[in-house]
Amino acid sequence: MRDFSHDHRWLSINTATVRAQGDLSAIIEACKRHGIRGLAPWREQVAAIGLKRAAAEIRAGGFALSGYCRGGFLTSDAAHHAAAMDDNYRAVDEAAELQAPCLVLVVGSLPQFSRAGSTPSKDIAGARRQMEDNLALLLDYARRAGVPLAIEPLHPMYAADRACVNTLRHALDICDRLDPARSGSIGVALDVYHTWWDPELEAQIARAGPARLLAFHVCDWLVPTADLLNDRGMMGDGVIDIPRIRGWVEAQGFAGYAEVEIFSTAWWQRPLDEVLATCVARHKTSV
Amino acid sequence: MRDFSHDHRWLSINTATVRAQGDLSAIIEACKRHGIRGLAPWREQVAAIGLKRAAAEIRAGGFALSGYCRGGFLTSDAAHHAAAMDDNYRAVDEAAELQAPCLVLVVGSLPQFSRAGSTPSKDIAGARRQMEDNLALLLDYARRAGVPLAIEPLHPMYAADRACVNTLRHALDICDRLDPARSGSIGVALDVYHTWWDPELEAQIARAGPARLLAFHVCDWLVPTADLLNDRGMMGDGVIDIPRIRGWVEAQGFAGYAEVEIFSTAWWQRPLDEVLATCVARHKTSV
Repeated sequence: MRDFSHDHRWLSINTATVRAQGDLSAIIEACKRHGIRGLAPWREQVAAIGLKRAAAEIRAGGFALSGYCRGGFLTSDAAHHAAAMDDNYRAVDEAAELQAPCLVLVVGSLPQFSRAGSTPSKDIAGARRQMEDNLALLLDYARRAGVPLAIEPLHPMYAADRACVNTLRHALDICDRLDPARSGSIGVALDVYHTWWDPELEAQIARAGPARLLAFHVCDWLVPTADLLNDRGMMGDGVIDIPRIRGWVEAQGFAGYAEVEIFSTAWWQRPLDEVLATCVARHKTSV
Repeated sequence: MRDFSHDHRWLSINTATVRAQGDLSAIIEACKRHGIRGLAPWREQVAAIGLKRAAAEIRAGGFALSGYCRGGFLTSDAAHHAAAMDDNYRAVDEAAELQAPCLVLVVGSLPQFSRAGSTPSKDIAGARRQMEDNLALLLDYARRAGVPLAIEPLHPMYAADRACVNTLRHALDICDRLDPARSGSIGVALDVYHTWWDPELEAQIARAGPARLLAFHVCDWLVPTADLLNDRGMMGDGVIDIPRIRGWVEAQGFAGYAEVEIFSTAWWQRPLDEVLATCVARHKTSV
């Protein structure tokens, strides 16, 4: 297991962590000030400054990406299917332009929440079937573009409205069906926030192996958690034994970034430099 | 699958659903007015009017219990172990006095949240081991008292502070280890709120079979959910396909009550009779 205590060369900042404090250019400049060399930008932040400019600033800054956020929301009624797929094809194109190592997917769930205006349904099993069919289509496109797809299993509290893939086991089952050769074209983004509770986590990480582990995200689970969406904790402030999980991931050969992704009303209210300095400090002590 | 559309003879009210509107005596009287014949009382509500009086009123009202809430919180540091076990032994005694068909267990998780004052830990795997050891002790006691224990797998969003058993699979694994003979002394309380998201739910219900299915709880998952604890929905107001899950349970031979357990700040503010009338109506249309 790598020693993170002396430097932060394997720290990446998911730009949603500081999305309230500045645009992507401001975040890139701040990351330079803090010696951060990994980034995972979001589509809307890239669009806000323009794709070409974003790509140029990332390249000029010497950054590596740890992922591109995000594609997905693959479920819908028939009337919204084409738009959902087109949206995802554009996300793949952008990821290719940015030379991202993977496109992170929040796969969607019940159609009325996945694509607004879709006919409501309570059929989560049906959503799972449709999601997988559409993911197969997207994988064909992504393979041609050379962009690996990373399914992010989301915490079960998001099962209705954000992702019908809620365990690493389920994500890997899908990967095995769509890519039995383990080609590297599809895998998972493993976020400790979504998966720390799972009694099968260690075993499923071992099953994933290096071919499927495309990204590793960190933050912390607070007790109490005041909000389902925007009360994630800074690493070390919650109950997740992050180094233990990182140890399992690295035992499989994962040697990439620990990407900090914190959705937090509290942290969005603090200065950009304070948040990044805290991420750097906690990366050394609590990741 | 039983037809619930014409009457509500298989409706039970978990008394937490209306805990803000009156004491257990008031709830019992209100259930009589609405022709409800099943109840699942909570320990603190029983204690508030006295165990003997509670038992007498339940008996006089001709009620059957669908469970007794609750034992558990079996994890702690060493200094709090004896008190935790004693608390659970008392819960078993009370369940026996009330002739409850099972004692529902919220098993606890990290010790600092399970038993206040315990030394903090992030070791959920350790909590799981300790929980199972203590559950084995409790099972010995409960067997002698003739009280079946029902492990309630809680939603993973409660994994830190309430229960380290978060899937039906995990609960059944524990049952199989502690009671390989499937004697009926230990099983599960299956609540749709905690388990609806699980892609393995149908398969694990089939695995459980009638020997392990000791209780069936209903409410609904709202989108959005405003609070992790107290924003459960009335059946029909959310996204859970409750009849589908009840069908899986009844296909295994379960023929007991559908117990309504709703923790909801919104419903606690409505009149007792309105809440019960709504439960009766939704039992017929949405369970």
